[in-house]
Amino acid sequence: MNPNSDLASNSSRLRGFWSDNIAGASPEIIAAVAACNAGQARPYGNDDLTTSVERRLAEVFEHEVDVFLVSTGSAANALALAAVTPPWGSVLSHSDAHINRDECGAPEFYTAGAKLVQLPGEAAKIDLTALAVNATRFVGDVHSVQPSSVSISQATEVGSVYSQGEIGAIGEACRSAKIPLHMDGARFANALVTLGCSPAEMTWKAGVDLVSFGATKNGTFGVDAVVSFRKDIASALGFRRKRAGQLSSKMRFMSAQMDAYLRDGLWLRNAAHANDMAKALAAGLASIPGVEIQEPPEANILFCRLPMPLIRGLLDMGFGFYHDRWEPGIIRLVTSFSTTAEDVSDLVRAASALAGSELP
Amino acid sequence: MNPNSDLASNSSRLRGFWSDNIAGASPEIIAAVAACNAGQARPYGNDDLTTSVERRLAEVFEHEVDVFLVSTGSAANALALAAVTPPWGSVLSHSDAHINRDECGAPEFYTAGAKLVQLPGEAAKIDLTALAVNATRFVGDVHSVQPSSVSISQATEVGSVYSQGEIGAIGEACRSAKIPLHMDGARFANALVTLGCSPAEMTWKAGVDLVSFGATKNGTFGVDAVVSFRKDIASALGFRRKRAGQLSSKMRFMSAQMDAYLRDGLWLRNAAHANDMAKALAAGLASIPGVEIQEPPEANILFCRLPMPLIRGLLDMGFGFYHDRWEPGIIRLVTSFSTTAEDVSDLVRAASALAGSELP
Amino acid sequence: MNPNSDLASNSSRLRGFWSDNIAGASPEIIAAVAACNAGQARPYGNDDLTTSVERRLAEVFEHEVDVFLVSTGSAANALALAAVTPPWGSVLSHSDAHINRDECGAPEFYTAGAKLVQLPGEAAKIDLTALAVNATRFVGDVHSVQPSSVSISQATEVGSVYSQGEIGAIGEACRSAKIPLHMDGARFANALVTLGCSPAEMTWKAGVDLVSFGATKNGTFGVDAVVSFRKDIASALGFRRKRAGQLSSKMRFMSAQMDAYLRDGLWLRNAAHANDMAKALAAGLASIPGVEIQEPPEANILFCRLPMPLIRGLLDMGFGFYHDRWEPGIIRLVTSFSTTAEDVSDLVRAASALAGSELP
Amino acid sequence: MNPNSDLASNSSRLRGFWSDNIAGASPEIIAAVAACNAGQARPYGNDDLTTSVERRLAEVFEHEVDVFLVSTGSAANALALAAVTPPWGSVLSHSDAHINRDECGAPEFYTAGAKLVQLPGEAAKIDLTALAVNATRFVGDVHSVQPSSVSISQATEVGSVYSQGEIGAIGEACRSAKIPLHMDGARFANALVTLGCSPAEMTWKAGVDLVSFGATKNGTFGVDAVVSFRKDIASALGFRRKRAGQLSSKMRFMSAQMDAYLRDGLWLRNAAHANDMAKALAAGLASIPGVEIQEPPEANILFCRLPMPLIRGLLDMGFGFYHDRWEPGIIRLVTSFSTTAEDVSDLVRAASALAGSELP
Repeated sequence: MNPNSDLASNSSRLRGFWSDNIAGASPEIIAAVAACNAGQARPYGNDDLTTSVERRLAEVFEHEVDVFLVSTGSAANALALAAVTPPWGSVLSHSDAHINRDECGAPEFYTAGAKLVQLPGEAAKIDLTALAVNATRFVGDVHSVQPSSVSISQATEVGSVYSQGEIGAIGEACRSAKIPLHMDGARFANALVTLGCSPAEMTWKAGVDLVSFGATKNGTFGVDAVVSFRKDIASALGFRRKRAGQLSSKMRFMSAQMDAYLRDGLWLRNAAHANDMAKALAAGLASIPGVEIQEPPEANILFCRLPMPLIRGLLDMGFGFYHDRWEPGIIRLVTSFSTTAEDVSDLVRAASALAGSELP
Repeated sequence: MNPNSDLASNSSRLRGFWSDNIAGASPEIIAAVAACNAGQARPYGNDDLTTSVERRLAEVFEHEVDVFLVSTGSAANALALAAVTPPWGSVLSHSDAHINRDECGAPEFYTAGAKLVQLPGEAAKIDLTALAVNATRFVGDVHSVQPSSVSISQATEVGSVYSQGEIGAIGEACRSAKIPLHMDGARFANALVTLGCSPAEMTWKAGVDLVSFGATKNGTFGVDAVVSFRKDIASALGFRRKRAGQLSSKMRFMSAQMDAYLRDGLWLRNAAHANDMAKALAAGLASIPGVEIQEPPEANILFCRLPMPLIRGLLDMGFGFYHDRWEPGIIRLVTSFSTTAEDVSDLVRAASALAGSELP
Repeated sequence: MNPNSDLASNSSRLRGFWSDNIAGASPEIIAAVAACNAGQARPYGNDDLTTSVERRLAEVFEHEVDVFLVSTGSAANALALAAVTPPWGSVLSHSDAHINRDECGAPEFYTAGAKLVQLPGEAAKIDLTALAVNATRFVGDVHSVQPSSVSISQATEVGSVYSQGEIGAIGEACRSAKIPLHMDGARFANALVTLGCSPAEMTWKAGVDLVSFGATKNGTFGVDAVVSFRKDIASALGFRRKRAGQLSSKMRFMSAQMDAYLRDGLWLRNAAHANDMAKALAAGLASIPGVEIQEPPEANILFCRLPMPLIRGLLDMGFGFYHDRWEPGIIRLVTSFSTTAEDVSDLVRAASALAGSELP
Repeated sequence: MNPNSDLASNSSRLRGFWSDNIAGASPEIIAAVAACNAGQARPYGNDDLTTSVERRLAEVFEHEVDVFLVSTGSAANALALAAVTPPWGSVLSHSDAHINRDECGAPEFYTAGAKLVQLPGEAAKIDLTALAVNATRFVGDVHSVQPSSVSISQATEVGSVYSQGEIGAIGEACRSAKIPLHMDGARFANALVTLGCSPAEMTWKAGVDLVSFGATKNGTFGVDAVVSFRKDIASALGFRRKRAGQLSSKMRFMSAQMDAYLRDGLWLRNAAHANDMAKALAAGLASIPGVEIQEPPEANILFCRLPMPLIRGLLDMGFGFYHDRWEPGIIRLVTSFSTTAEDVSDLVRAASALAGSELP
């Protein structure tokens, strides 16, 4: 299964909007990795750079945190959920959640068989009423799995962003049901710059207990982190990470990426740029006859409806994006820190040219 | 738990012999990572560099192979064993095996609860008679876990190396018991250069079905691979890797490391150098009164016995090595591709000075 | 959690219609257990009675079968599904399925974390179109769990019964998707007498690969069986059963129950009687003003709508049934082999008396 | 695999000493099962008999207890261990322990992959020094599984019995290491009557936290219990039992057995008789030339050494016992509540006759 089977192999000339995972890494990240290579360092996270990352994240979140670097976002999600969900528990999340659809059962694996309960909700956001019902039903009933954790994606898989108020309301529902709240922050930074609030306000101040702090989609190339605000699960997280084969011996090379990512606001600049590029795409495409923007982009993902000939035309020209995963005519465009204004104008210009010309 | 608590934090001035995981990466590896950053690439291993790695490994092993890049050696071992060991199976390995002692139960996790049966044997090598007994007893007895796989470490955890004949004999025992043979190759290259045979001769020609092909200890910074000679388990390995959170989205950065590692024989040069440094250490220390070399080093690990005052003296001077994990007086020295002749002579000179002087 | 919190504790005077699991066992079953107690017997199913059960089930199904006696229906379901579903697989079943709602994640436990995919469908029967879609989507996509088994309940949890044609169509869909079909036969006999076909026609001739052959709800007190038509999974089932703590040492006492259950058609008589009692209930209640039969009962479960005062009145008189699990006014009445014509007429008489009188 | 392949199939005439699991059940047990069949009862342990069993066990142990009835001893052991051992934990037990050798990995399954660490010790009893070492080593080391529980078999698999002092010392070691202590009481009663102390003295007063309270080997036919003195794990045990398919719907039939087992001291009479029969066997065989009693029997298991011709002679006469699992000449004789004085004298008479006659 190659999700990008039509991705030209001369990758350097590509103008792809498939996903933010087709980008490389920020130059600062590569430089940091090269720099950290000098000399020897303690293995398994006992090095100075890892200590620095822990300090930076504590400052970023204005809270004591336990930090567990891992190699993928799926590992971060599964590890975080396993720390708070017993095997007989259920994880409540939106049916569109990445943990539910795109991780081949990683949460079920790490939790030793917990059940993912799917909740409805507009724009891939959990419906609060459905949450309240499912967080409390069958509690104590030995015949049923027990509601044990809630996971929200911020930004969501469709690019929408929970408002502070929405997160707070979910946090309140979790607190009253005594269930921990996890945030899948694969696009944490993109959501944060959209809200313009502090990381603390978007997380623990709103009731979030654990975060999968994504970096790979936004500028690093191989590190994400579980950030926990709950001291009581740190020990379990440590053993579970090692047991999962996720404790890197030469961890400095992961820490160097995360350290540079957090240094001088690189992570926020990258996210702001990716979001801006999505807005620019929306603005440019909106004026083209026949093109319909589904929702104003809240992060770095844009859905729009195009006439089929226009879609085919763009693909024929070598532009890349997903176009056959939703109803006919709907395409998804994803921008990243590496998307350039030229990439955007190229696509917009091409689209309007195609729209203006005679299409078969 | 910091295994290197006495490792000075100014890592650049360190002269550590704790382990090969305190080294950085070869310059060629860093350069390759920087080089691969240009442009976009298909995610999840559908990029050109990953294809190149697969081709290189097929050439290295002179065999069709399925390759699964992962972020750690523990992940490679657990993934490989899970692909061939059912939950009610047992994995036969030496009691000193890394999978049994140092992975916090990763194989048990990935296999969903298989049992690790510990076999005796000199120099951390499996005793063939014990293997033959355990590979066939209780077969078909529903009350007992079933012997399902054998795992050998090449080089072993104490730095010894199985000869081709020894591997062949184990392979034969596995074949006759119809049990797959796994090789934990965390130090694959170190063993290979010692034997001077081909990768094919050290593996599938001797009956090995799956290899954890280690690279991180010998020059890369965050990639190892499961290399399988058995087409029938490729599909399971793919799903298990994803499910374990080990499928990297920006895999080109892992592949770039492995590709450079295999290019122009870097992996063999690095290993040969590490082994030579261990031999040089042995030669230099052997002549010092009171120092006793345990075994001539076969790979990049040297055990020797020193007078306690000599050990303390070296530690006081800032040399680093494990000294308190075995009987008093026994120390372990591990070299790597980055160990310099100067590092070796420094240690030897210091030791003989200390030995010659009056020690309290 | 006591699902029968309003069940009077003097159980002998009860007239309960909560479920068929509140009944005792048929006298023939008790007699068989007493009879098998003489002398010694081989443990773990190597006794003569277990051999007899295996022979009887082969005759019943007109097919070679592998039989695994277990202590509960949940164990039978989880064991059967685990034998055909890998950890990265999904089990497709109706959202109302017992395996999905009432087993506290037993299938997830036994499969080591497979995912239960919920399908829609009228009357708790799987919708064929939804099955076809879900049985084939994402196949080979490493990001998604893989459709690996289908489970249907015969009779269903609401008492409906799949026709031979419906089972055959599902079997056909499974065959074309190369997915095994499991039948949760907790009420196998009730469905069988309704269809009036042979066990073979209701199972393997229609494409069923494994059956959870229920006996406990229909006359025994502590034995159900996994009946497999697939030789290739017998070995795994044996090890999994032992590993689950489900291999009884004094199995003759379980086999004695099953043997008597299958002898002289007891199992069919019991089921036919239970079904007749449900029909009698429906006939009697249908004529009462204000009472509305939801569906003509197909097995031994009857749903009907009653005025709330009538429901309260019956409960006040000590009749027992579930009444608060669905929309207000809906009650469920379940009959069993031990339900008497008098139990039925008592309930009907009481209901019509209450309906005729002045109710507050 | 039929461990009793030479067990004559006409079981009623057998004189087998293979194991206590080849016996039937006490008449009182069968009578209780028949008696409990009247009328309806609440399912899933909400019936009066289950309540009675809970009360009786609280009285027996002079302590508040949580009771979980299960269908086998393996299920009781695995369930109890899973409640106190995390997946990254280790269970410390003797290498001869049933949990380690004879349950096909049930503890590994229920714990989601914990490791069973095998300890040495005379007479299948854990060596206290080895326990102290293993209970504290690698604690906090993320690379190692963590010592999480200790399990002792009382009586042991070879029929030896821990003294109160021995249990107390182990309990003390567990307490100081903060590790819960589990007792596999498959032959709890046999050990208890040997010690002549109270159940409280043999368990919680000596530091035992959980007991697998065996009944099946000593008079019932299909019920054992987890008895927990720790309120904090009751909830987990409840969910885990259901999830394991071990929550019986018609539980009254299991409770009836356990209730009768505990009533009027039946359980103690049965155990005392079984132990007496073992002593009688030892006394009778000891006087036969060439026969050597290994150890005076402490419970209901006797090991002795016989001349090979004598062993063959007894087997030829139809006596049954294990004779080929240890060094040549060693046989094991197991008695039970159903072993008669005549069974014993028959065996002794036959042995001395064979010993006196000319043997080939």
